[in-house]
Amino acid sequence: MTEPEDKAERHKKRMQARKKIVDAGVARALEERGTVILYTGDGKGKTTAAIGTVTRALGYGYRVFVAQFIKGVWECGEKNLLTQLPEGKYSLHWHEMGTDFTWETQDFDADKAAARALWSKARVALQDEETYLVVLDELTYALNYHWLDKQEVVEAIQQRPLQQTVVITGRGAKQYLKDIADTVSEMRALKHAFSEGIAARKGIEW
Amino acid sequence: MTEPEDKAERHKKRMQARKKIVDAGVARALEERGTVILYTGDGKGKTTAAIGTVTRALGYGYRVFVAQFIKGVWECGEKNLLTQLPEGKYSLHWHEMGTDFTWETQDFDADKAAARALWSKARVALQDEETYLVVLDELTYALNYHWLDKQEVVEAIQQRPLQQTVVITGRGAKQYLKDIADTVSEMRALKHAFSEGIAARKGIEW
Repeated sequence: MTEPEDKAERHKKRMQARKKIVDAGVARALEERGTVILYTGDGKGKTTAAIGTVTRALGYGYRVFVAQFIKGVWECGEKNLLTQLPEGKYSLHWHEMGTDFTWETQDFDADKAAARALWSKARVALQDEETYLVVLDELTYALNYHWLDKQEVVEAIQQRPLQQTVVITGRGAKQYLKDIADTVSEMRALKHAFSEGIAARKGIEW
Repeated sequence: MTEPEDKAERHKKRMQARKKIVDAGVARALEERGTVILYTGDGKGKTTAAIGTVTRALGYGYRVFVAQFIKGVWECGEKNLLTQLPEGKYSLHWHEMGTDFTWETQDFDADKAAARALWSKARVALQDEETYLVVLDELTYALNYHWLDKQEVVEAIQQRPLQQTVVITGRGAKQYLKDIADTVSEMRALKHAFSEGIAARKGIEW
């Protein structure tokens, strides 16, 4: 038997074994419902993954609600594109705190009021049967700064419609958020260009 | 001094300290160039973050090239949306292996040929000054299965135009990929709904 045949045969066996595992997983995963997905950690990709999910859900024509706690006065590429899609076909509701990063404002009361106003919109979306995806971007800050009532947020998420998915992003998610999430990915920064003196880049980082 | 004032004052001081750190970071990060961003690990959010980056770059009108190694015969929401944007305004070049997941095909030679054909397109994009963002989705599989020549891939990425950013995704990235990356985020699966018996969801997971 020649060496390439060996290799092909080994690959086939490995893939057969893998297929068995994947198929068994698919067979087990039968529960059809929306989930809570939490992206946390200090690495890059949390908001970016949320935006990817928004793009995906919109691509199937689902109604999407985005609330951005913290960010909101900067121009950003995804907002340019996603909020300018033809309205009949795509249904995106995008809301922001609009108060700049909190370390720029340094004003606790103004930030808290803005966060609470935004939360009241999110709470409505979390009760809307027609909204397929709710993104609570940077929610962890609003919770960790005690702008929002933790109990109220947890309950609103838990009492949402069965088919609705919620994506939460932000550093420093506390255990109670991990507890209510079905999926938790922690983005670990093994390396970050910014720390190496490379500027955050238009169209990539924002 | 009343308690709320204390709190506001403490918040202000914390935010002032934080602003100092953030501003110092921005002042240091002066190098303007494209980077290599690597999303790896076994958690959710790698491809999704890449798609978020694509949405962001397109939103500024930049030319984007996407090569999906592995996936490619399934319908997916982001493809529906992004490949149907008006062509004059957005410039997206999306290519796939189109051979289904490799554990379905179990055919080493067919997968290898498909991966190499796709790589030859990616290599052209990696030389194109007009392409702002190149996404090599699930590239780690194509490398780890030895479908592609590691040295050739590394050199093509390193020799790309200075202003071009490359996003690489996939589990099990080897050290040589981490070495050439400017930013590495490892997505750690702290929890995954799929393992708990919840089906992968249309418009969210694909």
